[in-house]
Order: sequence, then structure tokens, then C-alpha cells
Amino acid sequence: MKDPLRLHYAPDNASGIVRLALEELGLSFETVLVDRSRKAQQSAEFRAINPAAKIPALATQDGTMFETAAILLWLADRSGRLAPAATSPKRASFLSWLFYLSNTLHANLRMSFYPEKYAGPDPAHHQALLSGARTNITDGLQILNTYAGEGQLWFNNPENLSILDLYMGPMLRWMALYPRDDTDWFSLEDWPHLHALAARIEMRPSALALCAAEGMAPHPFTAPTPPTPPEGVAL
Amino acid sequence: MKDPLRLHYAPDNASGIVRLALEELGLSFETVLVDRSRKAQQSAEFRAINPAAKIPALATQDGTMFETAAILLWLADRSGRLAPAATSPKRASFLSWLFYLSNTLHANLRMSFYPEKYAGPDPAHHQALLSGARTNITDGLQILNTYAGEGQLWFNNPENLSILDLYMGPMLRWMALYPRDDTDWFSLEDWPHLHALAARIEMRPSALALCAAEGMAPHPFTAPTPPTPPEGVAL
Repeated sequence: MKDPLRLHYAPDNASGIVRLALEELGLSFETVLVDRSRKAQQSAEFRAINPAAKIPALATQDGTMFETAAILLWLADRSGRLAPAATSPKRASFLSWLFYLSNTLHANLRMSFYPEKYAGPDPAHHQALLSGARTNITDGLQILNTYAGEGQLWFNNPENLSILDLYMGPMLRWMALYPRDDTDWFSLEDWPHLHALAARIEMRPSALALCAAEGMAPHPFTAPTPPTPPEGVAL
Repeated sequence: MKDPLRLHYAPDNASGIVRLALEELGLSFETVLVDRSRKAQQSAEFRAINPAAKIPALATQDGTMFETAAILLWLADRSGRLAPAATSPKRASFLSWLFYLSNTLHANLRMSFYPEKYAGPDPAHHQALLSGARTNITDGLQILNTYAGEGQLWFNNPENLSILDLYMGPMLRWMALYPRDDTDWFSLEDWPHLHALAARIEMRPSALALCAAEGMAPHPFTAPTPPTPPEGVAL
């Protein structure tokens, strides 16, 4: 892959998932901070990079990509690692789970972090949406924990890392951390197979690189604490 | 591809998007009705097929798939049609837009159809979520209409059909049709490039086959009317 790739990121945002994949694949990349403190993700400048005005975006030799899962899949396919090949019989279920993580688990998490983007300004509606989204997330964790316990080749397999694993780590972190002071609904201990996944991947050099770059303490996925990023803000 | 594929469907559900792709690719397939009138999509039997309890699912020689966009991408890649090849420089942006359709446009549509699945039973919260989701959908239509007008190779190109096109047609139909008696917020005429896309693909044999199988009148994407399906219920 022709270098450099350029990751538009904010600390502890979904860009961290892409950072993990870039590190795992040994790809060199630059980073550009999207300054959330001045809502730079909604600026005309950033919309020219990602019309959907969301973090991350990744500039590549084939143009700028957006959507976390799209970037993960593209990087994996181009590198021939972290995902089953297009010709593999495992590809069918793998794609199903990748889209599920994107449009169900990640989407409901986003709702719970930014309820005002879905239910308007009234806090009464926010509480209803938070409650509903958390029910959906909990249902998703149940489904994913079961799947993670089935000895699959491409999810929670100690011998065979995948982008599904990398996608899960930061999402489990966010559940334990955001919104601040409102995370009692979640306990990673309730989901032993996902806990095992998180514990394993947080020890990898890719996770250590993420922690160093974005100011996270050790054990970022199983025992997260608020980050102290060298630049930018998380929310 | 070894036949037959088996599509678990309900009329005028997201399974129709997969049906369009199967027809376009000339693949033989069987259909199995998921009877929404008795909430069969939530049954233990169906959860064994799709743990996420959503329609569609597609049984393949590589196991059963779920998630509309995952099925579309898998069918396209296996057939070598309707999507840029993995090695194409167009693949990067194509994947970005496919995930965007799945986790933003489709996800917000689902919220607007089933607000109780996100905001609990109180109708006051449903209205807030409907309003927010429609703002998000309208933002998405603005972005997509712009993209559709740019002369892209893989979206709204008269010479080159893609799964992005097929995904859009039924979603535009649903905006004009559901929930019944509450669709004034949407007018396809506001989005001329998406209107052109819908008008073009609804004349294709694949769309005619969809109409015949699921009881839809002609012009299902530009001038939809409620379906009269030969079996099952739409909502």
C-alpha cells in the first residue's frame, strides 16, 4: 500500500478503532486532529472530507474514506489480513457480523452518547432514548457474547485476530466510560467471552500504541479510565 | 454459485432489496415467508437463523447470512457484478457509501418505523424520535442527492448498476409510504438525482419481479402505493 495514509481523528473516538487496524497491519500513517472543542467535525472543511461529518475519515491513495467499518474492511482486504478472504466460506458470516456491529451496536451506542442528535433538545426524551438504546445494546452484547463463545475462526479467536475483535475493544471501553457518571447499566463481567476478547487485545502492541497516542491508561478495554490526550478532546 | 439460495422475507421489508439483487444477478432462489402478523421474526426458530431477529436472512452454501448490506456485498463480490472489484480504486468510496446507507439512512428509517424499539412505549417520546430521525434522513438525502449528481461510476450511473442503487430504491419507497398517513415530510421531487435513480431502476425486470412477487403496483419507487401481497404482511 502506498504511503502515507492520513487518519482524521479525535481522541477516544471511533478513529481509535481504525488506528488499531493500521497499527496491526504495520501501515505507516499520519494523523490529523479533528478539534471537537470547536466542533470541527461539522465544519465545511471537514464535510469536504467526510460529507457525513463524522469521525473518522482516512485519506488513501484511492481517495478519502469514511465510515469506521468500511475503512476496516478495506484495510483488511487490501492487506490480506484480519478478515477472511472474499473467496473464503467464512466470508458470509463475517460480513453479516461486521455490518451488525456497525449498524446496530455502534449505531445504538452513538444514540446513547448523542441523544440530542436523534430526539431533539428535551432531556425527557433523551432519557427514554438512552433507556431504549441500552436495551438494544444489552441485547447485542448477549448475542455477541454467545457468538464469541462458539469458537469461531474470526471472532474472539486467540489464534486469529480480526477487525471484528478490534472493533469490539473500543466499543466495550466506551460503554464503561461514557456518558461520564452514567455507566452503571454496563458491566463487562456480565459478558465473559467479550471480557476475554478485550483482555487479550488490550495487551497487543497496537493497543499500547493507541494508549500512547491518545492518552489512555493501561487496560483501556477492560478497566478504562478517562483519557488525558496530548491534543484534542474526546467528547 | 451453488443453488438454491433461500431468502427469508416479508413483503415490502428490507428483504425486497436482496430480492432485487438476486434477480439482477440471475440467481435462482427460494423464498420463505417470515410471518410478521404473528411476529415470527422474533421467534426462537427465526433467531436460530438470524440472532438479530431482523428480516432479511439468506441461506447460502456458506451458511445463513443476515444484514441487508452484508448480503448485497457478498452476492456482488461472489458474482463479480454490481460492485467495484476489491482491487478497484473505486472500492474505497464504494464501501464508505455502502456502510453509510446501512448504518445511517437505513438505521434512521428503522427508528422512524419502529420508534418503540428505541424510545420505549410513550408516544410523546416517539414523536421526538420521529422528528429527529427525519432530520437525519433529510440530511442523508441531501448528501446522497449531491453524490448521485456527481457522475459517479457506482451510484446513479445509467450505464452501470450497483447494489447502492438497488439499496436506495426500496428505501425511497418506504419514505413515501410508511408510517401510513404520516409521510408529508418527504417528497422525492426534492431530490432530483435520487428521483432519476428511482425512476430508472423501477423499470428494470428485477423491480417488475419484485412487484409481482410482493404485490406492488407499477412505479414502486417513484409513486408507491400500499402493497397487496399474496402472502404475509408488510408491517
